[in-house]
Amino acid sequence: MAQKTAPDSTRRSERSRRAIYDAALALVTEAGYAKLTIEAIAARAGVGKQTIYRWWPSKGAVLLDAFLDLAEQASRAASENAGQDAVQTEITDSGDLEADLKFVMRATVDEFNDSKYDAPYRALAAEGLLNPELGEEFVAKLLEPQLQLFVNRVRRAQDAGHVLPDVDPRIALELWASPLAQRWLMRSGPLTHAYADKLVEYALYGITPRPTAS
Amino acid sequence: MAQKTAPDSTRRSERSRRAIYDAALALVTEAGYAKLTIEAIAARAGVGKQTIYRWWPSKGAVLLDAFLDLAEQASRAASENAGQDAVQTEITDSGDLEADLKFVMRATVDEFNDSKYDAPYRALAAEGLLNPELGEEFVAKLLEPQLQLFVNRVRRAQDAGHVLPDVDPRIALELWASPLAQRWLMRSGPLTHAYADKLVEYALYGITPRPTAS
Repeated sequence: MAQKTAPDSTRRSERSRRAIYDAALALVTEAGYAKLTIEAIAARAGVGKQTIYRWWPSKGAVLLDAFLDLAEQASRAASENAGQDAVQTEITDSGDLEADLKFVMRATVDEFNDSKYDAPYRALAAEGLLNPELGEEFVAKLLEPQLQLFVNRVRRAQDAGHVLPDVDPRIALELWASPLAQRWLMRSGPLTHAYADKLVEYALYGITPRPTAS
Repeated sequence: MAQKTAPDSTRRSERSRRAIYDAALALVTEAGYAKLTIEAIAARAGVGKQTIYRWWPSKGAVLLDAFLDLAEQASRAASENAGQDAVQTEITDSGDLEADLKFVMRATVDEFNDSKYDAPYRALAAEGLLNPELGEEFVAKLLEPQLQLFVNRVRRAQDAGHVLPDVDPRIALELWASPLAQRWLMRSGPLTHAYADKLVEYALYGITPRPTAS
């Protein structure tokens, strides 16, 4: 988008859009996805239903965009805290793959443990399971772009000779990313930094004894 | 249960129970979880609503038991095909961990690709995400018992010196089990035997170069 002054209608639209996102996120947290309706979002956001229908085909689509916006704001805030000008779009390459992956995984644990994300992300994941179209959007817009960062970092490690050349990065990343997501979704175990560290260590070095170099 | 002749009422109950399971599984596949109701299950099974309410507190609870029963029947059938008298309750220990894990993972891929399981399992997983009580039951009755088989097999491998002694088996198994479940749930990639094999190989040996023994 151009950095010039936006015309009034654009600013109004932007204000409405933000009010709609805030309303959708608040309502799903307070009442749950089953009770979320376009009517309720419109009422809370102080906009007409038609405004919402003009931009989104369903309540799931509104919630997905609201969540993507929330995630983008979070990365912007994290970048500013780190004193960076722009949102970081790649995983740092310090030359130490283990340290770089642990850093990202620990940050992901902290995010998953932040209640702000809980209701909307859980609702989107559940709805995506049952509704293949929304599921596809969820994967394409939210999941795959995040996983791609791991693909890029593993590729760089392969270039540096730190990861075996015949390893498929898109599969390898699942060894640490999927268990974390699965534990969170199924509430099947605690999400801690120590747990994240172990996933990275097991995936990088394997769980079987390595022959010692002589 | 005793192997003596069951009284008539028990046999009637057993027939009703099976009719209810069949109805719940058929309805969720045909119409989806949102449209599943106790009324519809009762009508299709030819039993009174009260019969269902006497045994289960909710439609999610009926579906969970129906799915557990389906899974049990499948293991019984698999055992009979393999010429075994009893359902196999542990993963085979051939002494070759890689081969034993690949065998189980390939069978799991085949199950996930069987459309019979698709709608009910997906519905249970989605409902478990939103409804913590059902989610807890889903994890306790279905997920954890399956994962425990991997824990036992990894422990035996540790006893044999094939897995590092300080590895936590409950975490290690997630490196191969969670990616498969995640891909299936999110439809985020193809589920093939080759994919299952790679997960096992990466987890056992790691994705970084191993020093060669001299």
